[in-house]
Amino acid sequence: MEATVAITEAQQKKVKPDPETLKFGKTFTDHMFTMDYTSDLGWIQPEIKPYAPVEIDPAAMVFHYSQSVFEGLKAYKNPNGEAVLFRPEENFKRLNRSNKRLSIPPINEELALDYLKQLIELEKDWIPSAEGTSLYIRPFVIATEPSLQVAPAHNYKFFIILSPVGSYYPEGIHPVSIMVEDHFTRAARGGTGTAKTGGNYSAGYNAQAKAASEGHAQVLWLDGVEKKYVEEVGSMNVFFKINGEIVTPQLNDSILQGVTRKSVIELLKHWNIPVSERKIPMQEIFDAYESGELEEAFGSGTAAVISPIGELTWKDSTMIVNGRKTGEVTKSLYQTLTQIQTGKQEDPFGWTVKI
Amino acid sequence: MEATVAITEAQQKKVKPDPETLKFGKTFTDHMFTMDYTSDLGWIQPEIKPYAPVEIDPAAMVFHYSQSVFEGLKAYKNPNGEAVLFRPEENFKRLNRSNKRLSIPPINEELALDYLKQLIELEKDWIPSAEGTSLYIRPFVIATEPSLQVAPAHNYKFFIILSPVGSYYPEGIHPVSIMVEDHFTRAARGGTGTAKTGGNYSAGYNAQAKAASEGHAQVLWLDGVEKKYVEEVGSMNVFFKINGEIVTPQLNDSILQGVTRKSVIELLKHWNIPVSERKIPMQEIFDAYESGELEEAFGSGTAAVISPIGELTWKDSTMIVNGRKTGEVTKSLYQTLTQIQTGKQEDPFGWTVKI
Ligand SMILES: Cc1ncc(COP(=O)(O)O)c(C=O)c1O
Ligand SMILES: Cc1ncc(COP(=O)(O)O)c(C=O)c1O
Repeated sequence: MEATVAITEAQQKKVKPDPETLKFGKTFTDHMFTMDYTSDLGWIQPEIKPYAPVEIDPAAMVFHYSQSVFEGLKAYKNPNGEAVLFRPEENFKRLNRSNKRLSIPPINEELALDYLKQLIELEKDWIPSAEGTSLYIRPFVIATEPSLQVAPAHNYKFFIILSPVGSYYPEGIHPVSIMVEDHFTRAARGGTGTAKTGGNYSAGYNAQAKAASEGHAQVLWLDGVEKKYVEEVGSMNVFFKINGEIVTPQLNDSILQGVTRKSVIELLKHWNIPVSERKIPMQEIFDAYESGELEEAFGSGTAAVISPIGELTWKDSTMIVNGRKTGEVTKSLYQTLTQIQTGKQEDPFGWTVKI
Repeated sequence: MEATVAITEAQQKKVKPDPETLKFGKTFTDHMFTMDYTSDLGWIQPEIKPYAPVEIDPAAMVFHYSQSVFEGLKAYKNPNGEAVLFRPEENFKRLNRSNKRLSIPPINEELALDYLKQLIELEKDWIPSAEGTSLYIRPFVIATEPSLQVAPAHNYKFFIILSPVGSYYPEGIHPVSIMVEDHFTRAARGGTGTAKTGGNYSAGYNAQAKAASEGHAQVLWLDGVEKKYVEEVGSMNVFFKINGEIVTPQLNDSILQGVTRKSVIELLKHWNIPVSERKIPMQEIFDAYESGELEEAFGSGTAAVISPIGELTWKDSTMIVNGRKTGEVTKSLYQTLTQIQTGKQEDPFGWTVKI
C-alpha cells in the first residue's frame, strides 16, 4: 500500500551537475518532501513539491532553542539502473530515538519510508552512477512554532531533501591523519550525543578548526566525563584492529549508533573475524601502538562508508598506523559494503531495499 | 554618531495586546532589525523593516547543525515615559563570546547597540508600563548558507525581534519548587555551556518535563562531569544564603555568565553583604539545610530578575527553604534591581541606558 502524498511537479528541471566536480551537500534535486505537525492534528499534509526556500517566522523555535533532528542515508544505482537504499528503516528508527531525546513527536516510520520511496522514484534520474557517487538523503525535523518560551514546540516541519554527491575518494581510498581532542567535548553522559541533533555538530567546529590548523583531517572525541575513553572520530564511529581483534567503543548515551557501525560488526561476525564492543581507554591504543599490536584503524559512516586512519596524534605523540597504508580488514570492509550498497555484490543480509 | 540603517515602516500597525493577558514570547512588535553576513563582504545591509516571516533555504545550516546564538535583555519604561535598557553592552559582549564558541563571525558591539536603540526608538509605544511588564529584546544569529557540510557557514543573518512581556509574578513574587537533576546533563566541561546557543536549551526539555511531572517548576543542573557541583537553575544562575553568606557557583566553561548574576554580586558587595563565588557541592547545600544554616535560595535571570526558591528536591530528600517564604536578601535584591531597571530608583552603578 502506498501512502498518499500530494505531488506537485517542478515546471522547470535543473541541469544535473557533473559528478566529477560535485561537492558534498551543495547541490539539491528538483523536489523535496514536506509534512507538518500541529499538536491538535498530528502529522498532516504530506507533500512532494519543487525544492524551494520556505517561509519561516523569525521567532520559530528552531532558531532559538535548536529543537531539531536529522538523518543521513544514501540511494545508489545498481548495475540494472535501479535505485537502491541501504537499511533505510534503521535511519527512521534512529530519527524517532532522536525525536524522543529532543521532545519532538514521533513520525510513523513505515509511512516515512514510503514517502521517501515516492520522492526517490520521482528523482531517480538524479542518482549518479559513476564509481563512488550516490544520492545523499537528508530527512530532518525543525520546530516551527513562533515562541520564545524555553519548552517543546507545538508545531514542526519534517523535510526530506536530496543531494547528489561525488566520490569521497576521487583519487582512491587513502588514510587520514586524526587528532585526539582533549579539551573540547562533543557530548557527555546525560547529554544529547546519541541523538542526531544539530547542537552536537556545531559544538565541534572549534575543535575541528584546531585540528585542521595542525594538519589533521578530523578529531577523535574522548568521553566528556573522564576524557579517557575513545568515543568517535569526527562524524564517524571508530574501529581499531589490535592483535588480530577488531574493537570499537561500546554504545553509551554519548555515542551515535551508526548504521555503518552496526553493518561493520555484522559483517565481521559473518566473516568470523573476532570483534568486540567495549570501553576503550585511549591509553590502551597508545600501548598497543608501542608494542606493535595496533594493526589497523578506521572510521565508519554514511558519507565515507569506511575511512582508514593513517596517523593518530595524542598529546605529544604521533602513532603511525600500518605504515600509513589502508589495512586488509579495512579494505575488505570498504569493498564489501560499497559493493552491497551499489548492488554489485549479492546482499546476504537483506540490507538493501530496491525502489 | 548614529549607525546608518535603512528603515522601512510597517504600513499597518498591529493592535497592542493587553499587558494583563500577555504570555512570554508569543507576541511580536511591528518591526524587526536584520543584517546579513557574507564571508566576502562581512556584515552588510542593516535594515529595520516590518516584522514578517523570512525565506530560508531548507538546506540552511542552522536547520542541520544548529549553528546559532542568541541574547535576551529588556527595555523598560521609566516614570518619565522614557525607554531604558539594562546593561545592554554586556549582552552584546556575551553575544560575541557565544559567536566565538560557535565559530560565527563577531559583530561590532557598538554598532549593534546603536541598531537596537534605533529599533526601540521606533517601537517605544510597545514598551508596556504596568508593574512588572517590559519589552523583551531577542537578538540572534543563524547560519543561512545552504550546505550540508559539517563546517562553519559562510553566510549568516542577525536579527533583533521584540516581544512585550507581562509580569513574571502577576500575583506577587512567590518561591518555587526545584528538582535537582542527576541523570540528564545541560552542559559539560569543554562543551557549549557558557555560550547562549540553542543546543543547550532543547537538550534540557526531557529533564524539564520530568521535573514538571513531579510537580516542580524548574530543574537544578549539576556539573556534567561529576554530577556533584551546583551549576544553574533552569535558565537562571543560582545563589544560596548559608549562615549569613551568599554563595554562587564560580564561573567555569559550562555555566552561563548571567548579566543579572553579575549585577547581584555587585549589589551585594555595595551593600557589604559577604558574597563568594566558588564550587558548591550539592552535599554542602544539603548539610547546610540539615544544620539549619540554609537561609535563602534564589535564581537570577533577565526573565524573572530574581526567582526565590522555596523547596529543593534532591534524590529522596526535600529541603524547605525559609519556610517556603521569600527571604530578606532575595526580596531586597528583587526590589532594588527592578527599581533601578525601571528608573524608579537612582542608578549609582551606571547600569541603565536611556534611549
Ligand atoms: C556523530 C556521528 N557519528 C557516527 C555517524 C555514523 O553513522 P552512520 O553510519 O549511520 O552514518 C554519524 C553519521 O553519519 C554521526 O553524525
Ligand atoms: C542558561 C542560562 N543561565 C543563566 C541565565 C541568566 O542570564 P541573564 O542574567 O543574563 O539573563 C540565562 C539567560 O537568561 C540562561 O539562559
